[in-house]
Amino acid sequence: MNSHIVYQVLDLVGTFVFAISGAVAARQRRLDLFGILSVAFVVACGGGIVRDVCIGATPPAALSDWRYLATSMLASAVTIAAYAKVRRLRFPVLFFDAVGLGLFAVSGAQKSLTYGHNAELAILLGTVSAVGGGVIRDMLLSRVPSILEREIYASAALLGALVFVVSAEVGAMSAWTPWVATAVCVGVRLLALYYGWRLPVYRGTKARREDARTRTNA
Amino acid sequence: MNSHIVYQVLDLVGTFVFAISGAVAARQRRLDLFGILSVAFVVACGGGIVRDVCIGATPPAALSDWRYLATSMLASAVTIAAYAKVRRLRFPVLFFDAVGLGLFAVSGAQKSLTYGHNAELAILLGTVSAVGGGVIRDMLLSRVPSILEREIYASAALLGALVFVVSAEVGAMSAWTPWVATAVCVGVRLLALYYGWRLPVYRGTKARREDARTRTNA
Amino acid sequence: MNSHIVYQVLDLVGTFVFAISGAVAARQRRLDLFGILSVAFVVACGGGIVRDVCIGATPPAALSDWRYLATSMLASAVTIAAYAKVRRLRFPVLFFDAVGLGLFAVSGAQKSLTYGHNAELAILLGTVSAVGGGVIRDMLLSRVPSILEREIYASAALLGALVFVVSAEVGAMSAWTPWVATAVCVGVRLLALYYGWRLPVYRGTKARREDARTRTNA
Repeated sequence: MNSHIVYQVLDLVGTFVFAISGAVAARQRRLDLFGILSVAFVVACGGGIVRDVCIGATPPAALSDWRYLATSMLASAVTIAAYAKVRRLRFPVLFFDAVGLGLFAVSGAQKSLTYGHNAELAILLGTVSAVGGGVIRDMLLSRVPSILEREIYASAALLGALVFVVSAEVGAMSAWTPWVATAVCVGVRLLALYYGWRLPVYRGTKARREDARTRTNA
Repeated sequence: MNSHIVYQVLDLVGTFVFAISGAVAARQRRLDLFGILSVAFVVACGGGIVRDVCIGATPPAALSDWRYLATSMLASAVTIAAYAKVRRLRFPVLFFDAVGLGLFAVSGAQKSLTYGHNAELAILLGTVSAVGGGVIRDMLLSRVPSILEREIYASAALLGALVFVVSAEVGAMSAWTPWVATAVCVGVRLLALYYGWRLPVYRGTKARREDARTRTNA
Repeated sequence: MNSHIVYQVLDLVGTFVFAISGAVAARQRRLDLFGILSVAFVVACGGGIVRDVCIGATPPAALSDWRYLATSMLASAVTIAAYAKVRRLRFPVLFFDAVGLGLFAVSGAQKSLTYGHNAELAILLGTVSAVGGGVIRDMLLSRVPSILEREIYASAALLGALVFVVSAEVGAMSAWTPWVATAVCVGVRLLALYYGWRLPVYRGTKARREDARTRTNA
């Protein structure tokens, strides 16, 4: 299979999965039809648009390639039609969200490398592609982005992008690399969910008391 | 009249109108002089800046062409000087906001076509030009963007951009096209306001009960 | 000393200082290790990334030049290791924040001029470089950007960028210019803090009563 097509497919499946998560969030907020379509599209494509603007790939593919818009609209339609069912699928939604995370981390890193940029940029923009849409969604809905407060999420995306880019840099790239890197990200994310893994949070007792006092006085 | 000048005028009148709506919002929040100028400029020019970055028209015209900044400052000065009057004009503010929406939807779509991009991008970026400033304003002021919760607004902008771009694509463009497309957007927006039109909101009784439970537990 | 190196040093010192302020804010919110690193990086580099995208300098230096990421990580490590000490330094934090403001205003304006853009763009983007990271931080943490409500801050950055760009435009640029412009910004900011200077806020008695009524009814 042509490797260009592989990344296209990764990207469109990731778009579909993320658009569903966006549409569910928008429907829970009672947004109207247009609001649901908009939030689904932003969650699915926001990260990729930021990535494309940063690597100079204008206009962003998500805005000029009709397949991204069509995929988002299809996902919105599925969500609206089968909302009662989609809502109850707590585990599947988290599962697909993890899959989207891995797919976007890898396809984002790969696109950045394709444009001839260096490894650091590819790793950072792979991560941005994966988590950007969710951050924009949370900023739109006026809440602190869950990725900043939550379990291992952005760090799993970073790890997936890292595995992919390091493989590419050391010349160990094969037809398996994108799948392995995606699997690493998805696996770490799902294991973190299952076992409740967290990154260290720093709170010395003394500093915490002072912070509490600051907040009370503020 | 030179058609390039027509779009320039559309754009600057839209800038003036939107800057007034931004300055009023900033003054209601008791921001200082600099805050009023900043919010007015962001509301008036934010959508166009995002559009220009997406089509690769850097630096964005709103940042490098002094007329946009001057227009925003003039609108802020008018708002500050005549605040008591401007505030009471509920209908005129909504009217001018609708006019700005139509003007930006058309001038944004046209600029995207001028840069040689496809119809989908022109329609999406016309809409972004029209609603982008307002979305950024709401994100800055930490509230859910009203366009996501409100009556027909972004969808009117989309319709105006659609009429314009389809006319251009089928070769039906004439000196009247920009005005007709603007009028369609403004008309739909004003009729939606007057008659209270809304897009469908989906809420099955059962899913609603479940959402309510989720929110209570969250 | 090579003038290119001067601006590099300005930029990296500014990055370090702003990253500390971001890391302190993130730790106060109890974010985990990754959250602290992310917010520190965004505060330190967000303004510069927006500037680079607007002048077409893609990929943005902060994303592709490892020294920015390394500087942010170093600042985060220092903050985590010495948090109890850093927290108590109220005056030093405000002082370094003012220094970062001045450094970024000047290095941002200079980069825009280097890319051949006009004076207005250089002044606006110098200001954006200086305050952009803080605005993005506040949008991420779901609060109204303090620069919109606060004392003289963005206006000090604007003044520093203005002094620098006007000097360059009238041919009065010397080896001292960047330092003088930085000092103007830092000085105005610190004096405003010390004496409690504020820009005028407009509130006619009558309009205020009406605003209060509007808010109550809303």
